[in-house]
Amino acid sequence: MKALVFHGPGSKAWEDVPDPAIQEPTDVVVRIDTTTICGTDLHILHGDVATVDAGRILGHEAVGTVTEVGPAVTSFAVGDRVLVPAITRCGRCSYCQQGMPSHCQTVGGIGWILGHLIDGTQAEFARIPYADTSLYAVPKGVTNEQAIFLADSLPTGYEVGVLAGGVRPGHTVAVVGAGAVGLGAILTTGLWGASKVIAIDSNKFRLETALEFGATDTVEAGSDVVGQVLALTDGLGVNVSIEAVGYPETLQTAAKLVRPGGTIANIGVHGVPVELPMQDMWIQNVTLTMGLVDTVSIPTLLTMVESGRLPAEKMGTHSFGFDQLDDAYDVFAHAADNSALKVVITPAA
Amino acid sequence: MKALVFHGPGSKAWEDVPDPAIQEPTDVVVRIDTTTICGTDLHILHGDVATVDAGRILGHEAVGTVTEVGPAVTSFAVGDRVLVPAITRCGRCSYCQQGMPSHCQTVGGIGWILGHLIDGTQAEFARIPYADTSLYAVPKGVTNEQAIFLADSLPTGYEVGVLAGGVRPGHTVAVVGAGAVGLGAILTTGLWGASKVIAIDSNKFRLETALEFGATDTVEAGSDVVGQVLALTDGLGVNVSIEAVGYPETLQTAAKLVRPGGTIANIGVHGVPVELPMQDMWIQNVTLTMGLVDTVSIPTLLTMVESGRLPAEKMGTHSFGFDQLDDAYDVFAHAADNSALKVVITPAA
Amino acid sequence: MKALVFHGPGSKAWEDVPDPAIQEPTDVVVRIDTTTICGTDLHILHGDVATVDAGRILGHEAVGTVTEVGPAVTSFAVGDRVLVPAITRCGRCSYCQQGMPSHCQTVGGIGWILGHLIDGTQAEFARIPYADTSLYAVPKGVTNEQAIFLADSLPTGYEVGVLAGGVRPGHTVAVVGAGAVGLGAILTTGLWGASKVIAIDSNKFRLETALEFGATDTVEAGSDVVGQVLALTDGLGVNVSIEAVGYPETLQTAAKLVRPGGTIANIGVHGVPVELPMQDMWIQNVTLTMGLVDTVSIPTLLTMVESGRLPAEKMGTHSFGFDQLDDAYDVFAHAADNSALKVVITPAA
Amino acid sequence: MKALVFHGPGSKAWEDVPDPAIQEPTDVVVRIDTTTICGTDLHILHGDVATVDAGRILGHEAVGTVTEVGPAVTSFAVGDRVLVPAITRCGRCSYCQQGMPSHCQTVGGIGWILGHLIDGTQAEFARIPYADTSLYAVPKGVTNEQAIFLADSLPTGYEVGVLAGGVRPGHTVAVVGAGAVGLGAILTTGLWGASKVIAIDSNKFRLETALEFGATDTVEAGSDVVGQVLALTDGLGVNVSIEAVGYPETLQTAAKLVRPGGTIANIGVHGVPVELPMQDMWIQNVTLTMGLVDTVSIPTLLTMVESGRLPAEKMGTHSFGFDQLDDAYDVFAHAADNSALKVVITPAA
Repeated sequence: MKALVFHGPGSKAWEDVPDPAIQEPTDVVVRIDTTTICGTDLHILHGDVATVDAGRILGHEAVGTVTEVGPAVTSFAVGDRVLVPAITRCGRCSYCQQGMPSHCQTVGGIGWILGHLIDGTQAEFARIPYADTSLYAVPKGVTNEQAIFLADSLPTGYEVGVLAGGVRPGHTVAVVGAGAVGLGAILTTGLWGASKVIAIDSNKFRLETALEFGATDTVEAGSDVVGQVLALTDGLGVNVSIEAVGYPETLQTAAKLVRPGGTIANIGVHGVPVELPMQDMWIQNVTLTMGLVDTVSIPTLLTMVESGRLPAEKMGTHSFGFDQLDDAYDVFAHAADNSALKVVITPAA
Repeated sequence: MKALVFHGPGSKAWEDVPDPAIQEPTDVVVRIDTTTICGTDLHILHGDVATVDAGRILGHEAVGTVTEVGPAVTSFAVGDRVLVPAITRCGRCSYCQQGMPSHCQTVGGIGWILGHLIDGTQAEFARIPYADTSLYAVPKGVTNEQAIFLADSLPTGYEVGVLAGGVRPGHTVAVVGAGAVGLGAILTTGLWGASKVIAIDSNKFRLETALEFGATDTVEAGSDVVGQVLALTDGLGVNVSIEAVGYPETLQTAAKLVRPGGTIANIGVHGVPVELPMQDMWIQNVTLTMGLVDTVSIPTLLTMVESGRLPAEKMGTHSFGFDQLDDAYDVFAHAADNSALKVVITPAA
Repeated sequence: MKALVFHGPGSKAWEDVPDPAIQEPTDVVVRIDTTTICGTDLHILHGDVATVDAGRILGHEAVGTVTEVGPAVTSFAVGDRVLVPAITRCGRCSYCQQGMPSHCQTVGGIGWILGHLIDGTQAEFARIPYADTSLYAVPKGVTNEQAIFLADSLPTGYEVGVLAGGVRPGHTVAVVGAGAVGLGAILTTGLWGASKVIAIDSNKFRLETALEFGATDTVEAGSDVVGQVLALTDGLGVNVSIEAVGYPETLQTAAKLVRPGGTIANIGVHGVPVELPMQDMWIQNVTLTMGLVDTVSIPTLLTMVESGRLPAEKMGTHSFGFDQLDDAYDVFAHAADNSALKVVITPAA
Repeated sequence: MKALVFHGPGSKAWEDVPDPAIQEPTDVVVRIDTTTICGTDLHILHGDVATVDAGRILGHEAVGTVTEVGPAVTSFAVGDRVLVPAITRCGRCSYCQQGMPSHCQTVGGIGWILGHLIDGTQAEFARIPYADTSLYAVPKGVTNEQAIFLADSLPTGYEVGVLAGGVRPGHTVAVVGAGAVGLGAILTTGLWGASKVIAIDSNKFRLETALEFGATDTVEAGSDVVGQVLALTDGLGVNVSIEAVGYPETLQTAAKLVRPGGTIANIGVHGVPVELPMQDMWIQNVTLTMGLVDTVSIPTLLTMVESGRLPAEKMGTHSFGFDQLDDAYDVFAHAADNSALKVVITPAA
């Protein structure tokens, strides 16, 4: 088959590789019908993720069709349309049994192994371990173009932003950074009844898009963000402040927007330490959360998409075929400039 | 002033009574600008509520204007527009401090005292005890015609139905009985992300109204309700089954609609014992909740109304002046026949 | 091998049967080192459980040693000492993924299949399906005589009583029925900081034992139970009222003991409907819970036993060998008369 | 009367001042029978708390007897023995109604006003505002020497450490810093069923005391703390890591001790920013909590003391009379060297 192979920092190629096959009785092989690119794939290509070896097939998001099943697999059969999430779940370690497969002890101490510790989904086929507990059947009423964003972006915004932040009916929410994941958070604040959702970004396309995704207010970064958010929230700040960028400054800003008793939910992937003003914060009864997505919210999100209440397809702004993967990476690498959110990649564009 | 006085079963009159005055330093007096009628008022008139003495002014729901404040009141001033909820909260007993003023130990072991143990709100003026902890300021963007339904019906549907039932994103919900309170539950399921909301009633007007209030499906009572609900919920039943009628049969029906692990939230006021099929239910890991409203969700509901996300005014179908109170009672007493939900009563119609 | 075979109501025999073997890749075979008898086994013998066919090997609790593993099993190896809980968990259906294997959709819609829908553990060996997600490794510091009660009785008292009841620090708790499961609830109330634990039973041995298990007060059934419990709880009743018998009268008593806002946690297995005084209860803001154990608390309970803080071995009052199984059943069937709680059964007494 | 008056950094005196009197209808005056000193009092004397003016009477913890009540006070009468907690609660602002009086908007945006924004409790008498919602009756079975530590230290360790940290049955807990507040956390971990509690400090007296307070293990600061804690917790770290010191290094240590999915509960009062290794932490699914005590757990703690299950009196190691207040401050300022935890101060020693 063909697959997108990482050849070290700055280098990748869509090339011939051996077909994947069942290795363990709990494996399945999936034909990839739709995949996409994640910010993490860009980090890998930049050489920022030391645990990815050269030769690795990239990608950890897919919708596909089961083509082969291991003898211990009981939940899926050849021909089933499935969602391949970013997280692989053994289902049996203590973390998986607590609903936290992000730290599955069996597959590597971390649940993100596809396109990382084992070959991934930017390929014609992929082997998926622990299929029974990792894959999700895609309901009939949900399209591939909707389901693909439930593999990572939407659950990340939802779980690490909205759920960890504890959004509840009547809450005010700020989202610092309206890229794909921040927009995923914005789109799902409505599931918990937020009354006011303030999007903060420096890019006008993203701010406009945020309003379409459910934001009620926007604030342009660079201006007096804190002052404007306080003015929108009776001077006390928001109940939940979501950080979806990953820099010290953006986390520090998020921390300034939250009211006493509120939560700062960090989604951003950080590369350096962050200085927190604990001399001011300790007395504020605030909570700071962070983490890798578990993808355990996928059944809920699929239900909401199926019910017509979650327009997940809005995340996809550009489409490409496998033979246009280089273009897809280029567009996604400069998403804000290209008015792009997420790209939809299929065998033929 | 004039007020609606209860003169024993079947008898009431809009008549002259002494003006209310401050009795305790924590009291205020409120001029009633809008009030309404509750099913409980009908029960009192039927003679079903032994704790209401003849001579009592009826009514426990109002929006009004503060005309006098006791010396210990700090949160409200003369001229403030306030919501008078069904529940009076001392704010200092252990129940109030736990957020459960429905059982306030100070005001009578029960928080519902207006129009019950003390004079109520179907009057030109009313004295409200423990004003600081009982009243709510009405935000500018919320009209009297919206706020009035937050005094009792909507918080009852929301707290005793949606909150007690534990509705969560993706859940399926059944509501047995689409009267005012059942519709209040339906209207607020969206605050917690329900994916499917099934209204069950024998009245076609109510079923049509349910769809306007956010129900996704309707089932006519008398048909094979259980079969139809199971068919709508992959054969397992709903996550949350809300009873909003108050008869043994309706609670038994609600109990049959819930899936293993789900919750039956009883809102109905019952007059007789109910036989539960515990021989079938014990193994189902279900929860049965019940109770009087606390009205502590009012700040959340006011915020949602103010944000434009909760059209509370939909509850009001008919308007009357104080001099038409008899008509108002007649219409409300036969609400289903009159295509009525709740009545709006103001000094001049 | 030899096993205890059910031959229809009133009839059982310890007899030769074929050895169990691996049937599915997810199975293991376990040599039974310790087992016990559950009240449910008595129900089966009385002919009360229609789903148990003649020919079935009884028993659903065991500590044993793995003797054979299926090719898909990764968490256990031959020689491992394991706890076999009452509930079999596929780990992949929606119920298992929500932590509610009591209703595992894969193994039969109910998680209790051992000694029920498939052969059980009162035998020299047993086949255990879905071993990776069903079995628990027994820590070195925990003896077989401690672990055996974590297969069913203790988790039932803990999950269906203490957890479902929502016991929290400072709470008062009543336990109606101080048999093995009620005592399991009493023993674990301390994990959640109960301040007062009132045991109610008609048997003096059980009441004395309750004090040893952590009860602070006892009330003899038949006396003015409600009056005595109210006197012990400032006139309002307990926060959590646990029913551990299974009759209408005992559930009705439990319902009378709870304060407004409290929870009635039904553990009892009921055979007939129960009439609830909803005309009094609806206004009390109480919650009624019920259900089959999930056994998902076993890791917590094993940790507490290992730490020396949960003396699970206290549940075992009598020991028998496999060749004394008839005696074991006799003693257990008349537990109260025999000052017995649970019996410990091993290959050789 | 006499009181301890702050005269600016480094200066205080036990001197004559005017008697306090009722100012608002919600006030009471309390005769101080027992008080104590808090670390915050030392900070004030060091000049670290800019909001304390010279002339202020110090102290925010007391057990006393009501000597005068305002006309709006209904819960307390002259002669009642009451606990005066560190936090004053108006009971009517949105923060108080949410159970978070630490940020009471009425009394100053912060609930700690005694000995801070108004005169405090290191005095013969003190005026207490909002008495109905701020004071707690002391049960007969609880001594002054027990109750005094429920005014601040114990609820701080419990609420900001154990509750915010989310300790649950079976959890492992580390407490960095075994001073009075850290020991308060250790003492209350048992209310939530912790299985292992590791105390970390540089002082041997404190480590020995920690074992008496319920710690199961101790680690001496300065050694390989992280390595030792990992060795005690199967290599993954603790579920809950409580910081009770207030320095960047101790918070950084606490952050290294927590396992994926765990919580770092910061109790320490910080004076400078803290650099957090977000490049390592973001992926760990950890939560960082912090805040001022609400003292709303006092009813629970009083119940547990009354039941004999919480030996609060262990916090008091030294006793002084009002005329020995200088000695009391000296001993407490060098608590570790003096084998002191908290001091008990009464009118006559």
